[in-house]
Amino acid sequence: MPLVCLTDFQDHARERLSKSTWDFIEGGADACLTRDDNVAAFKKIRLRPRYLKDVSKVDTRITIQGEEISAPICIAPMGFHCLAWPDGEMSTARAARAAGICYVTSMYASCSLEDIVGTAPGGLRWFQLYVHPNRQLNKQLIQKVESLGFKALVITVDVPKIGNRRHNMANQVDLQKTLLLKDLGLSAKGNSMPYFQMSPIDPSICWDDLSWFQSLTRLPIILKGILTKEDAELAVKHNVHGIIVSNHGGRQLDEVPASGEHGVEEVLNILKNEFHTSMTLTGCRSVAEINRDLIQFSRL
Amino acid sequence: MPLVCLTDFQDHARERLSKSTWDFIEGGADACLTRDDNVAAFKKIRLRPRYLKDVSKVDTRITIQGEEISAPICIAPMGFHCLAWPDGEMSTARAARAAGICYVTSMYASCSLEDIVGTAPGGLRWFQLYVHPNRQLNKQLIQKVESLGFKALVITVDVPKIGNRRHNMANQVDLQKTLLLKDLGLSAKGNSMPYFQMSPIDPSICWDDLSWFQSLTRLPIILKGILTKEDAELAVKHNVHGIIVSNHGGRQLDEVPASGEHGVEEVLNILKNEFHTSMTLTGCRSVAEINRDLIQFSRL
Amino acid sequence: MPLVCLTDFQDHARERLSKSTWDFIEGGADACLTRDDNVAAFKKIRLRPRYLKDVSKVDTRITIQGEEISAPICIAPMGFHCLAWPDGEMSTARAARAAGICYVTSMYASCSLEDIVGTAPGGLRWFQLYVHPNRQLNKQLIQKVESLGFKALVITVDVPKIGNRRHNMANQVDLQKTLLLKDLGLSAKGNSMPYFQMSPIDPSICWDDLSWFQSLTRLPIILKGILTKEDAELAVKHNVHGIIVSNHGGRQLDEVPASGEHGVEEVLNILKNEFHTSMTLTGCRSVAEINRDLIQFSRL
Amino acid sequence: MPLVCLTDFQDHARERLSKSTWDFIEGGADACLTRDDNVAAFKKIRLRPRYLKDVSKVDTRITIQGEEISAPICIAPMGFHCLAWPDGEMSTARAARAAGICYVTSMYASCSLEDIVGTAPGGLRWFQLYVHPNRQLNKQLIQKVESLGFKALVITVDVPKIGNRRHNMANQVDLQKTLLLKDLGLSAKGNSMPYFQMSPIDPSICWDDLSWFQSLTRLPIILKGILTKEDAELAVKHNVHGIIVSNHGGRQLDEVPASGEHGVEEVLNILKNEFHTSMTLTGCRSVAEINRDLIQFSRL
Repeated sequence: MPLVCLTDFQDHARERLSKSTWDFIEGGADACLTRDDNVAAFKKIRLRPRYLKDVSKVDTRITIQGEEISAPICIAPMGFHCLAWPDGEMSTARAARAAGICYVTSMYASCSLEDIVGTAPGGLRWFQLYVHPNRQLNKQLIQKVESLGFKALVITVDVPKIGNRRHNMANQVDLQKTLLLKDLGLSAKGNSMPYFQMSPIDPSICWDDLSWFQSLTRLPIILKGILTKEDAELAVKHNVHGIIVSNHGGRQLDEVPASGEHGVEEVLNILKNEFHTSMTLTGCRSVAEINRDLIQFSRL
Repeated sequence: MPLVCLTDFQDHARERLSKSTWDFIEGGADACLTRDDNVAAFKKIRLRPRYLKDVSKVDTRITIQGEEISAPICIAPMGFHCLAWPDGEMSTARAARAAGICYVTSMYASCSLEDIVGTAPGGLRWFQLYVHPNRQLNKQLIQKVESLGFKALVITVDVPKIGNRRHNMANQVDLQKTLLLKDLGLSAKGNSMPYFQMSPIDPSICWDDLSWFQSLTRLPIILKGILTKEDAELAVKHNVHGIIVSNHGGRQLDEVPASGEHGVEEVLNILKNEFHTSMTLTGCRSVAEINRDLIQFSRL
Repeated sequence: MPLVCLTDFQDHARERLSKSTWDFIEGGADACLTRDDNVAAFKKIRLRPRYLKDVSKVDTRITIQGEEISAPICIAPMGFHCLAWPDGEMSTARAARAAGICYVTSMYASCSLEDIVGTAPGGLRWFQLYVHPNRQLNKQLIQKVESLGFKALVITVDVPKIGNRRHNMANQVDLQKTLLLKDLGLSAKGNSMPYFQMSPIDPSICWDDLSWFQSLTRLPIILKGILTKEDAELAVKHNVHGIIVSNHGGRQLDEVPASGEHGVEEVLNILKNEFHTSMTLTGCRSVAEINRDLIQFSRL
Repeated sequence: MPLVCLTDFQDHARERLSKSTWDFIEGGADACLTRDDNVAAFKKIRLRPRYLKDVSKVDTRITIQGEEISAPICIAPMGFHCLAWPDGEMSTARAARAAGICYVTSMYASCSLEDIVGTAPGGLRWFQLYVHPNRQLNKQLIQKVESLGFKALVITVDVPKIGNRRHNMANQVDLQKTLLLKDLGLSAKGNSMPYFQMSPIDPSICWDDLSWFQSLTRLPIILKGILTKEDAELAVKHNVHGIIVSNHGGRQLDEVPASGEHGVEEVLNILKNEFHTSMTLTGCRSVAEINRDLIQFSRL
């Protein structure tokens, strides 16, 4: 059977991956309400087609944070690609470059950052950061990604505590084996805990801490995980360069809104006025993933 | 079991047709969201019955583009009837004449136009056109159908690019074998591509090109596939004789609105004022088909 | 298993009745959309309970068309009870009298009217009429039911043409065998047609014909099957004594509104002002039946 | 398999409990419409997460009726814990004390009140009362629970008549065997009736009777089962200390609203102004249970 759509790839993957890997990739937090809402919300989007226009030539290029990409599509940050493919994030980096789009590399990449950069020189890449309690480790990592040519710093704000993923608990997933800790500037010591405590994330980070990150780097800073109009307004006030409206694919806090529902429209309206480009940020993990980071607005 | 409703015919057909033919007939584009919406939207229509009226005699006749039909029902343009019945469009033409309704013959008919006309002389027929990139071929075909007695020219506007029908891709349907290319004024040369590239359709056709078609023929011109109020208003401005509000049975661009949803009501309201007859345009392909071209408004 | 709710009785019946009888009783018209809407609409009704009230004694008696019943509940007119129980409508009549409620006897009863009256003397009964094309037969039947002590004449207005019940067509149900034609004042001659043509119903009856019925009898006249505000207003204007808002259990014209939907609320509001009693008219055929004639308003 | 969520515990329990016990615990009244609405309404609740706030230290303590608890969560009154666990309400009392929350002990507890108090001295407990027709028995019981150190009296108002639980009827549940009648101040004589008549509840109790209860005890009085704005306003007028907005888990009167639907929002809004603390009152019986008593407002 040829693979002609995402659902075909999902079926294909389910047959080939171990249960614990499949559950890690496909599973949402708690009762998976938000993950399922994501899929349903995505299916509810309707296009209003206009006809009798010349579409013999179509140009989808846009500029994002000063760089041109071939279409308003990015690959969202997802960790541990080696779970699904031996070449892991290196394959993803090459695919993104071939498609001419931006690859937002996860801090939880299972390939080293040097390998990711080396395999696809010239590709546009951003780096996604979970803030570590040790400030110096954050500083070292940010300076490293800047020197490696990443073009923006995406700070995830929706993980003050790792989501309650029941399947992982039941499966006792232990992801350290695939995580290259040296990239995180972390020693392996003290990291023998199961997955959901895998890497310490600072639960105390506040809006006021953003100026410290801004002082560290000339990279544009983008906040990922904003879901309320209040936080969107604070993002504008704190001079970040963009936000990613996302519920983390329903994998983080369950029972939060899906795109297009429960006030998320308000967030998008505010941002359309404050940040000037709207785009689709997508990944290949699953259908739910597509909606996970449906719309990003970045300051031009 | 007697066949007492469309669903019975569907089940009957599914048992008798090959998988690739069934999939071609029943399948929608992409995830079939719009096709399924069509069926759901059709089921949501509610009648408000008025009683204690004399219905011992009922007259459903109307006049459409100057011709009387027995009821406000037409047969929508559908290609390749020979896939389902040896006699193909010739049977359809005879059935339409027997019922006293209009048969909108598809450009992708699998019988020759001469045979369709010859088998049911005197029947009311319109002709549906996909615009070919070669203007002269369009001209020859339009002049041919006018001389064969077709009473209107229906130009399909919603296929600048053929819909992404996954089942056809998986089945590798090749429909040329049943397509009588001579009717299209096309040589068979360069047509050995699979179904979805079967016949070139001009992606550059624009509103301004309509005057060229209007200069070619005295037949009334009707645009098929309008889904937005903006395009409906442009149709009025460009002096077409009618439009068919249609999403191509969900077989063309997926994720467009079904009849009665997402602003389609607005289109219908505008047209009720500008075009004076509302009618049902229907076919027999499947239940989804019924909704495919639910309402047509034609200028009297 | 004890039978503790209607669903239990349904399951019990399905096991014991022939397929054609079950289909006749349970089946709706066409695609059964309205029948299914009825069940869904009934499930959506919500009560707003008030507490800390003395309910040690409860009195549910009301007066309907001048007669007191023990609760605002009637048995809706349903034909052919002998299909499900040997004693047929005689059992129903005794049950209604025992419960102190009104039994609206169907013209298509499978017991003779004399037997129904004789088995439960003193019970409150109304008679439901399908208008026959032969006016004299209607007159004879109305005079008969008046002399037998029925207290109101319910004229069904929603059957100018018998509903398209697909299951019956497939099953070729022939109900004449259980129908006592003598009660209808009809000869058996010319009645060898299958069920859905079983008894001629006058398709020409109009609002203006009501005065003829009113001249025939002193019984209050109630119209059954009203679904629009326009018809409800006409009923008030024509001085009928009550209307029954009903979609015939979804067995007559499919795709009409269920109670509480699509403007039926408007009908009820108008009638609450014009007719002074609201009540529930119910039967025991099935769950759908309960909703079939959910609310009746009768002039006091 | 580890038990990581309520659904896991449900499955675990279903395997281990007898059918009649499972049905008693899981079953709702009549068609279970309200029970199912509860689960659906609970799933519809959406959080609006705010990020970039310091959550390294979280304090969820609140004060309820003058007593501090560790989080705004109580254990709702549920009877007959011994059906599911040998130690019954004694285990529940110890768990509530360990969690630092309030345990609302049911009058239908299957352990003696002395044992419940004795097993977890110092725990915060309220007592839930069904009003007995014999006023003196109520008085004795209230004085007993006050002397045993219960801190509030919760009077259930939504059971003027026991709910129509079909499963129990079918199973012929007889719960007296586990009910310690001496705690109710009742003799066993005259109590050999099946479950649903197990204990007489006064159907005549009225708003005016509340002053008698208020004269009996210094405990704050809270009304459980309020569902309408009208009754909430009466509760304020009659000087009760709190109300519990509850539909009895859908186990009492079916077809009443679930939390958040059909005007319940109005009740909550009124109470937010009149009673000053909102909290979640929950139990462990089933998922439906969580919603059963979703929100309580208590006068500070």
